[in-house]
Amino acid sequence: MSNQELPVLGQDATVEGCCPGLLSAPLDEDQAVVLAKVFKALGDPVRLRLLSMIASRAGGEVCVCDLTPAFDLSQPTISHHLKLLREAGLIASERRGTWVYYRLLPETTDRLAGLLTRPAGDSLPEPAGLPA
Amino acid sequence: MSNQELPVLGQDATVEGCCPGLLSAPLDEDQAVVLAKVFKALGDPVRLRLLSMIASRAGGEVCVCDLTPAFDLSQPTISHHLKLLREAGLIASERRGTWVYYRLLPETTDRLAGLLTRPAGDSLPEPAGLPA
Repeated sequence: MSNQELPVLGQDATVEGCCPGLLSAPLDEDQAVVLAKVFKALGDPVRLRLLSMIASRAGGEVCVCDLTPAFDLSQPTISHHLKLLREAGLIASERRGTWVYYRLLPETTDRLAGLLTRPAGDSLPEPAGLPA
Repeated sequence: MSNQELPVLGQDATVEGCCPGLLSAPLDEDQAVVLAKVFKALGDPVRLRLLSMIASRAGGEVCVCDLTPAFDLSQPTISHHLKLLREAGLIASERRGTWVYYRLLPETTDRLAGLLTRPAGDSLPEPAGLPA
């Protein structure tokens, strides 16, 4: 496994500080390219399942050896999907001994959630009651 | 333009009520397929720009005739991108006279934002300095 397989966070532009908000103003072309890369990484069922397995793991870290058995796919295929998630800034990886361990980068999912949130004043009332 | 070009919300499964949360529990295969379709629709710079133009328009509705000039693309290409956004449940369309008008379906973006939001109690401290 090459050095390229080590954590490469933000090797290109990332969504950090990317855009004012997807719903509040038209994106410019550069912003759209950065953001599309992240959404494209999420646009695959296997990658979504991998991300949810990593994100929901108590302890915050998952060995690739625990991810692969959940899929009817080869190890190289799983590794390729994980690489796309990593390049999108959604997860980070660390090799320790034989295995690579993955963890969520919540700043990226937080940022996406924020970008998809309607601007203040444009929201419908929250279904959950707010404390008075 | 056929009837298929009229609003077709939820012609397949939609993200409405899809999943407990992308980050709180592993998605099952069916949930992942539904959700991947929506993220895939967002995984293209032209579609993201179209969505942001539609979502941010005061009045909440945009004529396709106002969208096309912003792109160096043919009308059929723009229409194809709009169709993918519509099939993903992100926008709705209505034909009136010569033109088709598009509007955001905020329940879908709300749902995506919710799915990308960390479960309560799982948030990290904000990177910005906390008061001592």
